[in-house]
Amino acid sequence: MAIMKSAYSPGVISMLPLFYVGWRDSILSPSEMKMIHQRIQKMTHLTDEDKAYLIKHTDPQQPPLPELYKEWLQAIRLSASSLKHDMKTNLSILGAEMAMINVPNASDEEIKLLISTLREVEIALGINDSIIQNRLFEQIGIPPIEIAAGTSDIDAQKLYDMTNHFRPEAKARVKNLLLDPVFNINEDFSDKEDMREITLQRVKALAIQGIGALSYPIENDGGGDMGAYMAAFETLAFHDLSLSVKFGVQFGLFGGAILNLGTQYHHDTYLSKTGTAEYLGCFAMTETGHGSNVKDLETTLTYEHDGRAIVVHSPTKSSGKEYIGNAMHSHYAVVFGQLIVGGKSRGIHALIVPIRNQYGKLDNGVSVTDCGYKIGLNGVDNGRIWFDHIQIPVQNLLNRFGSIDKNGDYISPIENDNKRFFTMLGTLVGGRICVGLGALSAGKTSLVIAIRYSLRRRQFEVSEGLPESLIIDYPTHQHRLIPQLIKTYVLHNALSELASEFAEGPDEKAIRKIETKAAGLKALATWHSSATIQNCREACGGKGYLSENGLGRLKADSDIFTTFEGDNTVLMQLVAKGLLTEFNQSFHDEGFTAVLRYIGGKIQFRLSEYNPLFTRNTSVEHLSSDDFQSDALKYREKKTIVSLADRMRSYLDKRMTPHEAFLKCQIHMIDAGRAYIERTAYRMMDRRYQDLADSPEKIYSCG
Amino acid sequence: MAIMKSAYSPGVISMLPLFYVGWRDSILSPSEMKMIHQRIQKMTHLTDEDKAYLIKHTDPQQPPLPELYKEWLQAIRLSASSLKHDMKTNLSILGAEMAMINVPNASDEEIKLLISTLREVEIALGINDSIIQNRLFEQIGIPPIEIAAGTSDIDAQKLYDMTNHFRPEAKARVKNLLLDPVFNINEDFSDKEDMREITLQRVKALAIQGIGALSYPIENDGGGDMGAYMAAFETLAFHDLSLSVKFGVQFGLFGGAILNLGTQYHHDTYLSKTGTAEYLGCFAMTETGHGSNVKDLETTLTYEHDGRAIVVHSPTKSSGKEYIGNAMHSHYAVVFGQLIVGGKSRGIHALIVPIRNQYGKLDNGVSVTDCGYKIGLNGVDNGRIWFDHIQIPVQNLLNRFGSIDKNGDYISPIENDNKRFFTMLGTLVGGRICVGLGALSAGKTSLVIAIRYSLRRRQFEVSEGLPESLIIDYPTHQHRLIPQLIKTYVLHNALSELASEFAEGPDEKAIRKIETKAAGLKALATWHSSATIQNCREACGGKGYLSENGLGRLKADSDIFTTFEGDNTVLMQLVAKGLLTEFNQSFHDEGFTAVLRYIGGKIQFRLSEYNPLFTRNTSVEHLSSDDFQSDALKYREKKTIVSLADRMRSYLDKRMTPHEAFLKCQIHMIDAGRAYIERTAYRMMDRRYQDLADSPEKIYSCG
Repeated sequence: MAIMKSAYSPGVISMLPLFYVGWRDSILSPSEMKMIHQRIQKMTHLTDEDKAYLIKHTDPQQPPLPELYKEWLQAIRLSASSLKHDMKTNLSILGAEMAMINVPNASDEEIKLLISTLREVEIALGINDSIIQNRLFEQIGIPPIEIAAGTSDIDAQKLYDMTNHFRPEAKARVKNLLLDPVFNINEDFSDKEDMREITLQRVKALAIQGIGALSYPIENDGGGDMGAYMAAFETLAFHDLSLSVKFGVQFGLFGGAILNLGTQYHHDTYLSKTGTAEYLGCFAMTETGHGSNVKDLETTLTYEHDGRAIVVHSPTKSSGKEYIGNAMHSHYAVVFGQLIVGGKSRGIHALIVPIRNQYGKLDNGVSVTDCGYKIGLNGVDNGRIWFDHIQIPVQNLLNRFGSIDKNGDYISPIENDNKRFFTMLGTLVGGRICVGLGALSAGKTSLVIAIRYSLRRRQFEVSEGLPESLIIDYPTHQHRLIPQLIKTYVLHNALSELASEFAEGPDEKAIRKIETKAAGLKALATWHSSATIQNCREACGGKGYLSENGLGRLKADSDIFTTFEGDNTVLMQLVAKGLLTEFNQSFHDEGFTAVLRYIGGKIQFRLSEYNPLFTRNTSVEHLSSDDFQSDALKYREKKTIVSLADRMRSYLDKRMTPHEAFLKCQIHMIDAGRAYIERTAYRMMDRRYQDLADSPEKIYSCG
Repeated sequence: MAIMKSAYSPGVISMLPLFYVGWRDSILSPSEMKMIHQRIQKMTHLTDEDKAYLIKHTDPQQPPLPELYKEWLQAIRLSASSLKHDMKTNLSILGAEMAMINVPNASDEEIKLLISTLREVEIALGINDSIIQNRLFEQIGIPPIEIAAGTSDIDAQKLYDMTNHFRPEAKARVKNLLLDPVFNINEDFSDKEDMREITLQRVKALAIQGIGALSYPIENDGGGDMGAYMAAFETLAFHDLSLSVKFGVQFGLFGGAILNLGTQYHHDTYLSKTGTAEYLGCFAMTETGHGSNVKDLETTLTYEHDGRAIVVHSPTKSSGKEYIGNAMHSHYAVVFGQLIVGGKSRGIHALIVPIRNQYGKLDNGVSVTDCGYKIGLNGVDNGRIWFDHIQIPVQNLLNRFGSIDKNGDYISPIENDNKRFFTMLGTLVGGRICVGLGALSAGKTSLVIAIRYSLRRRQFEVSEGLPESLIIDYPTHQHRLIPQLIKTYVLHNALSELASEFAEGPDEKAIRKIETKAAGLKALATWHSSATIQNCREACGGKGYLSENGLGRLKADSDIFTTFEGDNTVLMQLVAKGLLTEFNQSFHDEGFTAVLRYIGGKIQFRLSEYNPLFTRNTSVEHLSSDDFQSDALKYREKKTIVSLADRMRSYLDKRMTPHEAFLKCQIHMIDAGRAYIERTAYRMMDRRYQDLADSPEKIYSCG
């Protein structure tokens, strides 16, 4: 092999590829330069002259002139032309190889040391990136490095374990179960009846394995492990959203209502057979006329002291229960309505109402109609239910928070009607965390599809003879997918930690914060997933539009997640309410009047934080630092909340009604909720990052 | 009726409702106040004392103190309590009524004059809005005004006519046709074969009416009216997107290719029977391996001088034509591939290839497979097509831009291969405008559904006894829907004007700008519609998720619009390329190397515009003025383009390859494209607004 003699020494030559690529954007930061200086001083293969030359050209204030830059490229080209190019390479190997051409008798050990030192510089400069490096390789005629699954030095299993810190054993168990042929998705179904039937069979198959009863008490044949239940729900959502939703309705909503709103009698009578799916049940809260406004449901639950029965009745067409999952299969419904005792309304309560016998025949006085085809989730049997004066024994009242004594008097451990209502609704929090996790599973699946495709699909050649570029190599394509991938990691971490905290059984005080976070993270995660799947469809072009590639189904099935278990816009207002009252009890106990009275008087906190934008330091280093990011998110949150409180106070000072003040600030409230929840998710991720031991996987595990 | 005596004079009382509501936000602008002063001076029912009092309280620097504000409310309450409240009212009527209680002998004429003067003030202050007014009515115990379709003083037909200035007669004709039962959408179909068959029958029904041939020359039994064809496509898309897409493929793409790329022989042989749908055809451009990168299609069209035939061949599996609409029904395909004459490649050309006989039997050498189910548009038969060395007579070559003479030599009126390629692709521009219009039709339908629902759906009561609020009365709901409605008007106007300009048959120079605008508006309109439909689904909650309400179908059917007829991200880069070369011919003739060479040398324009944000005038009046909006959009556009050109030049100075410089600026290019196209759409709307005569409908017609 003819060796071309370069004008540069072997030492300088070894560094040129790194310098060339590193200077590309003219944004080497002072600390990066300091690090390079230290490494240069330590490199044994450099002469003093080499070091002086290299240090001279690391001054951030004096980037190399275009002529010099061009000269470097020529020198790299000249040296590189003598290399064999049939190996995959990177900048440090390239530099070492080029240097070694001029030192033919270097030992293997010397070469290894040189490569590893160069590699350190490469990584520290953040140019250990095949996309960036390929641009240089292209210029000097080296075939591009293939970026493809499996070429990374990251241990995928280790990365999975690091990120799946929440109930990994439950996830593994469900994943394993899903390999059973009964869960194979048969894409040929287009009839909803077929889809519903098979989904029911799958729910039963999970029940038999004990997955449904995971959260129930051990004495009711359950697993006694709320966390494992949530992890199971999350895992099912990777596979089949109809299955996970029907599973969630049966075991989480129906069974969960019995568990959380009922007492010993209900647990003993219903939970065991609910867990095995012998009893199928639904959660009949929403009515056609009342979705978000649960407090004003029209269904009446009227107590009759003669016979000690509660009469369940739907007084109007719009009081029919709507979108009720499992409605076409259920034996029982937990029905929410206005409890009337002694002629006086006691607000929303829930009652177990038998609606079908074991053969599936509807009980007298119960009417059910099918909601028909939906955009997605057609494996879930959603229906409408009306009740015509049906009498139910009083012991079916889920009476943990309100019951009727032997004299026919209403009694409750919670005096205040509002507080009782919000306490009951608070039992939905587990479901909201599950919905957030499930939506995220759908979003993750879509990212896997789109990113894998982008690592195989090629379009447009860089130059004659080279293969066309992978679409992931286009910055616009990276820009489409990578920020959404990172956000997915951050939300995954936040929801996993929240689920973990919730599963521990938090006290009354902690639950306030969890409820606020669950509302906000549910909204954020479901909106995020919806946008992510849409984006992944577009990123796969025509292929993304074919049913066989699954993105349509993911989008259609998960679309309703932004609406159910609390409409996102309404949830974000709850978050803001929680913030304004600093998670005070009154967030749950009272309506807006009380919240606004509270703000009018109490809120004292002022915006004393330093505005992180004020320094006008626009260096990349500063703007991408943890400190800046964290300060910026904190400042935004405080600023949004303080200005919200100020506006509300000023409206109240003008004697606006609380309702009017609330309307005027409604959009501001959504902003405040988002600012809080985004900062919260960031902080959780940041804390986790600080706590992890260093490893190559660490940075990937934290988005 | 007992008349309560107010502490205020009748004149002052008449103005208090306006003052009270007007001062709500403390943002009365100087010019608003000036207008109020003028009106006050002119009002005959005010005493000098009244005028002095009112003028004193119109100083923007001195808003009324909370105590006074409260006093006004008390006075309004007191006066209002004597009124009958069973009529729909507004602030000016309320003011006039309250004043007249104290002037019992006022004539009808005086009352009318008073009301109309107050009304002027009300409108000028922008508080003639039932949502704003209801807040006051709520405080003083007047039943809220119902906002419902039909109560507006806008003439709907007049508004429609003003906004549908593009080929209204063609739209009316197609709308009328669609009333025929053959077009009734049968939602029960779930099998694609049924959907395809009925869609085919509908395409034929349109053909019989002459709708398909609208754009073809009159001598080929066409309508000779490209504009009418585009308006027909837009109108069909309101009704059934499968129908509009199959219609577009048959008459616009297949027939359009013959019209635009063929010559007299092809027109005479094919157009008439294409227009009647006797010949069904498809547009076989995209291949599995090449979508956006049309230039590198693999299909070969090899000329054989013996027998004067062209051999059509798919050399690889990935060279199969994919997603080809009408593929399962067509008799002919216009096939795009590399034309090889005398062993030399002449680049992309198109050829009419028979693929099935009149009985639907596939020709030898042609293989077709079904693309299967898609997310939507399942009424369109998309398929894949491969060719195995089939011989086609040379006269089937669409030879307007390149033909083969009797000696077997290639000849073309366009010397440069690149220029010829882009000229051929330029014939797609009409299709892009149609796709933008069609997507917008889908978005409009979704807005109608969601806005109508918001005017009927109620949730949460303001206070005991009042009906629950309409969801449109919530600012978050307005915020969800209204900006998207306005943007829809703006894009509708831009695309209508562009279609109109294109239909006129613009000259070579004008077509450059039209191509750039068509690319940008197609991208903007399809992204916008996709987001709008998604948003409307969420705004309808659970109802939006039911198939019967149509939003799912709209989303699914229109989803691919962001991809076909040019992927939006790729189109936005074309827009940027057009801007960088100032619509120079080289945009079409050359690749990026030439564009960058051009920028390196020529671009001289500098950012001399005044930065409109620099004044730091943050008054509502200034920020919402036409001048500011227009300056801001202009500044953003120039700034984005100039900085893009600067970055590119600096990368080239550093001896980056043009490809590398392009990659580094790719995201910036998308931003530049968007900035240009948004400003363009704004300018078109603004110009239209200036040109319209004043009328109550004018402001609504311009978003």
